[in-house]
Amino acid sequence: MPAATRPLNVLVWGENRHEQLEEHVRATYPDGMHGAIRAGIEEHLGETATVRTATLDEPEHGLTEEVLARTDVLTWWGHAAHGEVDDAVVERVHRRVLEGMGLVVLHSGHWSKIFVKLMGTTCTLRWRSEHDRELVWTVNPTHPITRGVPSPIEIPEQEMYGEYFDIPAPDELVFISSFSGGEVFRSGCTFRRGNGKIFYFSPGDQDFPVYHHPHVRRVIANGVEWAAPNLSEAALPTLLRYETGDFFTGHGYQGALDAEHRGGQA
Amino acid sequence: MPAATRPLNVLVWGENRHEQLEEHVRATYPDGMHGAIRAGIEEHLGETATVRTATLDEPEHGLTEEVLARTDVLTWWGHAAHGEVDDAVVERVHRRVLEGMGLVVLHSGHWSKIFVKLMGTTCTLRWRSEHDRELVWTVNPTHPITRGVPSPIEIPEQEMYGEYFDIPAPDELVFISSFSGGEVFRSGCTFRRGNGKIFYFSPGDQDFPVYHHPHVRRVIANGVEWAAPNLSEAALPTLLRYETGDFFTGHGYQGALDAEHRGGQA
Amino acid sequence: MPAATRPLNVLVWGENRHEQLEEHVRATYPDGMHGAIRAGIEEHLGETATVRTATLDEPEHGLTEEVLARTDVLTWWGHAAHGEVDDAVVERVHRRVLEGMGLVVLHSGHWSKIFVKLMGTTCTLRWRSEHDRELVWTVNPTHPITRGVPSPIEIPEQEMYGEYFDIPAPDELVFISSFSGGEVFRSGCTFRRGNGKIFYFSPGDQDFPVYHHPHVRRVIANGVEWAAPNLSEAALPTLLRYETGDFFTGHGYQGALDAEHRGGQA
Amino acid sequence: MPAATRPLNVLVWGENRHEQLEEHVRATYPDGMHGAIRAGIEEHLGETATVRTATLDEPEHGLTEEVLARTDVLTWWGHAAHGEVDDAVVERVHRRVLEGMGLVVLHSGHWSKIFVKLMGTTCTLRWRSEHDRELVWTVNPTHPITRGVPSPIEIPEQEMYGEYFDIPAPDELVFISSFSGGEVFRSGCTFRRGNGKIFYFSPGDQDFPVYHHPHVRRVIANGVEWAAPNLSEAALPTLLRYETGDFFTGHGYQGALDAEHRGGQA
Repeated sequence: MPAATRPLNVLVWGENRHEQLEEHVRATYPDGMHGAIRAGIEEHLGETATVRTATLDEPEHGLTEEVLARTDVLTWWGHAAHGEVDDAVVERVHRRVLEGMGLVVLHSGHWSKIFVKLMGTTCTLRWRSEHDRELVWTVNPTHPITRGVPSPIEIPEQEMYGEYFDIPAPDELVFISSFSGGEVFRSGCTFRRGNGKIFYFSPGDQDFPVYHHPHVRRVIANGVEWAAPNLSEAALPTLLRYETGDFFTGHGYQGALDAEHRGGQA
Repeated sequence: MPAATRPLNVLVWGENRHEQLEEHVRATYPDGMHGAIRAGIEEHLGETATVRTATLDEPEHGLTEEVLARTDVLTWWGHAAHGEVDDAVVERVHRRVLEGMGLVVLHSGHWSKIFVKLMGTTCTLRWRSEHDRELVWTVNPTHPITRGVPSPIEIPEQEMYGEYFDIPAPDELVFISSFSGGEVFRSGCTFRRGNGKIFYFSPGDQDFPVYHHPHVRRVIANGVEWAAPNLSEAALPTLLRYETGDFFTGHGYQGALDAEHRGGQA
Repeated sequence: MPAATRPLNVLVWGENRHEQLEEHVRATYPDGMHGAIRAGIEEHLGETATVRTATLDEPEHGLTEEVLARTDVLTWWGHAAHGEVDDAVVERVHRRVLEGMGLVVLHSGHWSKIFVKLMGTTCTLRWRSEHDRELVWTVNPTHPITRGVPSPIEIPEQEMYGEYFDIPAPDELVFISSFSGGEVFRSGCTFRRGNGKIFYFSPGDQDFPVYHHPHVRRVIANGVEWAAPNLSEAALPTLLRYETGDFFTGHGYQGALDAEHRGGQA
Repeated sequence: MPAATRPLNVLVWGENRHEQLEEHVRATYPDGMHGAIRAGIEEHLGETATVRTATLDEPEHGLTEEVLARTDVLTWWGHAAHGEVDDAVVERVHRRVLEGMGLVVLHSGHWSKIFVKLMGTTCTLRWRSEHDRELVWTVNPTHPITRGVPSPIEIPEQEMYGEYFDIPAPDELVFISSFSGGEVFRSGCTFRRGNGKIFYFSPGDQDFPVYHHPHVRRVIANGVEWAAPNLSEAALPTLLRYETGDFFTGHGYQGALDAEHRGGQA
């Protein structure tokens, strides 16, 4: 069923550790950070989306083949336990992104295995958690992700994330943030990888109520809509041979050398 | 010693399997494909570069820490044996690129572990090895990589590589090729990752004398020059904390939670 | 009324000279080329769009302030009479694009005054009208403009447009074409200027029935949808002064010097 | 004579009005702002460049055909008198950029006729001249324009320039600035137009000694080097017809229709 004629299937993934371990985080996010993110998406997308959640401590982190196969857009928040995410699950999510699933990576998700794998860089940055004010400025007013939010969005208290942010140059730079300490950050970036679209958005932290901020919630909902799959069916880019004059029937690859020498490819 | 005041250290890496296993390849490339690539770079860069070679069957594939530490630009040709390249060596090369070493990836190197890791995508394409003529058109005449070559470069016989080439949108698209069968390919692309510059150039194949083509050699030499490190010293982007008002003294990261809960990051 | 809740207002602008002067063009396009383009958009967008046409020989070329003010997306086809388009009308269209109106520029519209003004370059290319076959390859499968069309789109007979196409590097490269003569062309390109989105699509010519081609029509309809305004109201970017701490109330500009010396700006 | 074997011919263009009209500007810049900019370039490029100046009040603003023909890179500072720059001179500079001459546009030059013409947008921004501190952060450490300067560059007092800056998305975003008031600005941007390279760099103002700042001077010198022409000879992109199979001999264009109907192009 094409996405346009049914609700978008959105899965909000949350690490859900700070909420269990730290009282002040639990107080700010009684339904978990994933609960707040889910509520923000539901409040904006309404009946056009079905939003579920999954967390680290579920079997396979709640990201089984079956769950991912029916997910149109996945949002990702992780921080303290990136290292606990199973590599096999990361491979699975990676393949689904290249097949067309949208991915919205939030805040400290910059250092998640899945984002690092998709970017190919260290994804490091400078940081400080000291109640900086963050201002989020729109630098691409034609982008649908900016709809309905002012420029700047004012976030009274936030962790500082600053440049140099070691990512590939984004396909589209949507937001740039400043912090009261004077740092800047490319806080809203889009990337296209394989058949999938990726939106990275940095506002959001366990120590501050950023996922209750109405404009932050609007941006995340916009990002989810934007990242919806473009293809009507999942398709992984594949290496195939094509005969001269036949543009549509690719052949399975048989290897670079004859069978006994074979090690590789085309 | 800054690169500008000494010769550029270039390392031409070749898989060197087809040359050993296939008579017709040995005939076309009596010094190996890496030998031809090296000669092309030397003929254009002269005394401004020192060019060495390394191959798969050397210990650590000839890519030890010591060798890589003194390499400014690495060129990479592999095909039949991508799978035999040791993952630890791939990690090492990856880190060196992010530290600033230039990387020129040639032809079937599109499916090498190092290129796939840097791109984050499948790097697949369509192909056919049937004596297509390739025309390489310049689409960015301001780019130094295009210096001294006509548009188009005519390559009488080549393997066809066609779209969809599953790479991130390049930072700069320099060349687009057509093939006599009608396919097109983004054949000259630049990417920046971490502190390193990457140039992918698709012309070149074991079955055809493409690395003896004067314009192909010129482009590769131009690419090597362009990919030279920008920083005077190698530096891996690193996650660091900065106090308010101190922009230059980053602190080592101590973890996201107190010691007993610690699993991750910022 | 926000665009999402009412039909998109689309205006198809046609030069309409070849159709009057050349019998074979009239035979191919009995309703004019603009008529064929309009029909293609209507057949795909249905009730979600209201499509009108305007032509060069109407007063103000059919592009009055009133007409443009209610246009969401304008498509532009011109060729033989670019020079007859009134500069004041070009200024008006230019301002509307910067305010947010979408613009879809077709084929020989590459040399229209409005496209050249928006690009800032010569917009020249190489060409030949000799019945080349054109193949239009998708290089960005995540882009909504590619929906529902095969890769490649095969156009049996077309004018050749080849590189170097003197445009700024597009924000998104969507299609690359090859021609039977061996030339290549960046045939589908997006650009963002001010608050407006621009899609250039090269297939289409007066001498061939390209605007009756089902896939070409689909791409143009997709392009119109994509170019719809993002802002809920037209807004021209304006130079304004802002007091410290007030991010939302810009002041009218009074000039760089006191009144007697005044010549310029901020 | 190819640029590499002779000094680069650099022309520093200055409006030179504030210096004549305002005592405090004359005190800060006794040799004019153009004099300070020239000194900064000379101090870094030494014998590899010959640097001249030209100003608004000279005949043809000092930008005759002869002067421009021998200029490799032009830098542009204007502010109060953009409107006085003769349109014919703007056309001449525009053509020279498309032919390959480099252009470095400084600070308030964002609203110069030449920059607006090359960008195709309004080039407007938000501003405030109130002694903000500006921090200039590197976001592309592989770019040669960033060589030798810290990140951030600290400018104690500056005019604030803030987003939204209405320019096309730059080909490369090199620097992002923050201001003490919280605004951000894409302060170092590159663009390629025709055969020419353009660098926009926003630091610099008549009211503050920014062009005496050693790091600002270094960036401008780096920008001049980067913008040097890539082609060995000036060449304006031109619309030409090519016969099938002849890729190198373009024919002069004869018009779209026969002589009596002719108005346009290909």
